[in-house]
Amino acid sequence: MCRKEYPGKALVWRCECGGYLEVAEVPAFVPSAIQTLPSLWRYRRLLPPLPEEATVSMMEGWTPLVRVPLSAGEVSCKMDFLLPTGSYKDRGATLLVSYLKAAGAPHVHDDSSGNAGAALAGYCARAGIPCDLYIPAHASGGKLAQIQAYGARLVPVPGPREEAKKASMADAASFYASHNWHPLFFEGVKTYAWEVWEQLGRAAPDHVVVPCGYGSLVIGAYRGFKALRDAGEIDRLPRIFAVQASACSPVYQAFAQGAGDVVPVTPGTTLAEGIASGSPLRGREILEAVRATDGAVVTVTEDEIVRALRLLARRGMFVEPTAAAAPAAADRLLREGRLRAADETVVVLTGNGLKAWEKIRPLLEGGVS
Amino acid sequence: MCRKEYPGKALVWRCECGGYLEVAEVPAFVPSAIQTLPSLWRYRRLLPPLPEEATVSMMEGWTPLVRVPLSAGEVSCKMDFLLPTGSYKDRGATLLVSYLKAAGAPHVHDDSSGNAGAALAGYCARAGIPCDLYIPAHASGGKLAQIQAYGARLVPVPGPREEAKKASMADAASFYASHNWHPLFFEGVKTYAWEVWEQLGRAAPDHVVVPCGYGSLVIGAYRGFKALRDAGEIDRLPRIFAVQASACSPVYQAFAQGAGDVVPVTPGTTLAEGIASGSPLRGREILEAVRATDGAVVTVTEDEIVRALRLLARRGMFVEPTAAAAPAAADRLLREGRLRAADETVVVLTGNGLKAWEKIRPLLEGGVS
Repeated sequence: MCRKEYPGKALVWRCECGGYLEVAEVPAFVPSAIQTLPSLWRYRRLLPPLPEEATVSMMEGWTPLVRVPLSAGEVSCKMDFLLPTGSYKDRGATLLVSYLKAAGAPHVHDDSSGNAGAALAGYCARAGIPCDLYIPAHASGGKLAQIQAYGARLVPVPGPREEAKKASMADAASFYASHNWHPLFFEGVKTYAWEVWEQLGRAAPDHVVVPCGYGSLVIGAYRGFKALRDAGEIDRLPRIFAVQASACSPVYQAFAQGAGDVVPVTPGTTLAEGIASGSPLRGREILEAVRATDGAVVTVTEDEIVRALRLLARRGMFVEPTAAAAPAAADRLLREGRLRAADETVVVLTGNGLKAWEKIRPLLEGGVS
Repeated sequence: MCRKEYPGKALVWRCECGGYLEVAEVPAFVPSAIQTLPSLWRYRRLLPPLPEEATVSMMEGWTPLVRVPLSAGEVSCKMDFLLPTGSYKDRGATLLVSYLKAAGAPHVHDDSSGNAGAALAGYCARAGIPCDLYIPAHASGGKLAQIQAYGARLVPVPGPREEAKKASMADAASFYASHNWHPLFFEGVKTYAWEVWEQLGRAAPDHVVVPCGYGSLVIGAYRGFKALRDAGEIDRLPRIFAVQASACSPVYQAFAQGAGDVVPVTPGTTLAEGIASGSPLRGREILEAVRATDGAVVTVTEDEIVRALRLLARRGMFVEPTAAAAPAAADRLLREGRLRAADETVVVLTGNGLKAWEKIRPLLEGGVS
């Protein structure tokens, strides 16, 4: 945090000092600034300023919040798997690509486990910005197919997620529009917290349970609800629960050890490909968000993920394995009494099951006559 | 049309006379009855009455209407591929399954090319109603996978779509919750017309272009906009364009020949599996809708479907081949001057590309480095 400032339209993704950037000044939250649009752009005047004429949008956001009975209690599911490219990443992509368009980026690239890549590819397609995406070769087929269909150049990278990052960071031919580095992406994701607050009748939930890889949903909840508290709209922050897969849990390990930052790990194999991140960049803020809200980082097993995926589908919601990690954790926390069934628990459903149906189908036995 | 009446909660799908049923009395359209819910249930008081406590909903509807430049002009796309199970069929399913729940149906079955089956499976899962679905074995993988995940019994039927219908109609073990026979399904689909009217600032578009198999979108537009005209909310109906695949075009043939009803055909092979229907039940009303509004039935080739699918994806919208038939037709009508670019043309995007990514991927060459 060297505090060096860059102009708003500068095509920059990292500070000269090597650190990540933050938006210097975010507008204070004022409820009267909310517009009536059924999209996250209802909060335009509460987000970092972007020129309206450069907006790259498909009217994303304002997703349903639906009550769903899990096995040990009911929760409210935020249906972000219904966003235009099929994951919550569209919240970040619409802001990031609007910025890229405003800044006149001629060509960009990024690396991703798949969903952020699909979101960037879709929004860059709409903006007319050529885009190269470094994606693990083993990513779910739907993610690879949609990236290609959007017209991006797909670069499948063998090996774990980190290899795709390395290849992408070595690409000096275009701007690194990294959803994990660029602060506007996090500002966009934040909007889900405000939507939940509005959907609950302008009240904060008691608990928020989200999958955690690079932590944009954790940080989004923390910043979003803090803005509401600072504005006097809510009294206290919801407890934030960050969910990792047992096979890749660097944030959990740091949390359990009382560490202040995350130590990188080599990810194991997990169905939750979207959170198989060995070295999250903003580990310090993730840990702060969880600790400051009296939340926790929890892990779930592969078996718990599959069981939650099936349970969700049996309630009408077909999500991808990564998305099932959060309800899996919520259900266990309810069963263990760490969450109370009478409380308002919001679980974010992050990605569409149709993206990964070829991986999901063999996991769910039975059903064919 | 023997005019025999059945009580609202009767578990009946066809009249004793063999004809299809219609809802006896639909409320007149009154704008003040619209509620603020961001869901098609905002029109609850304008739809056939269903007990509120039996509502089976995932807050579906109120999908974005987004401007998209095609090659020969711009249109407004109604993004119904973002509904909870990934197709516009959710509009019908939420009403039909709410009725099934209110009527106490213990077990149901249906046949479908895939999307309606997925919608019924998803909503029956939410309602806790066991459900058997007869689906062509060659349906897109995502549709089969999601039906199974929702916990329905999937019965894959080899051969064309009509074979699945035959197998389903021969099943006397449970109630035939047919989305093509039951009038509540059509009443639910109708809501998209009202949403478009609201989204255009309470104005009708000039043209509506929709894929047409059994014709629920054609009939939905006709009934929806007629209700608005009867209420004095709009002056004239939009021209309705029904789109069929060249390989299966019974409605087009009847239209071109000036016939009053549709003669069944044997469907050829087409990528547009969702409209490969050889014998639509309500052919007479489809033809009336098109003729009364000065619209037309048009066909598109397989090549036009693939080109429109690619073009849509290059605008950020990844839809399935059936869904691409409508923008394919709209683009040709614009190019031929049968639609004017200055007019407001609404194209309904019916199904998510992620349902069929394994079929789409080989169609779109290039993109891999």
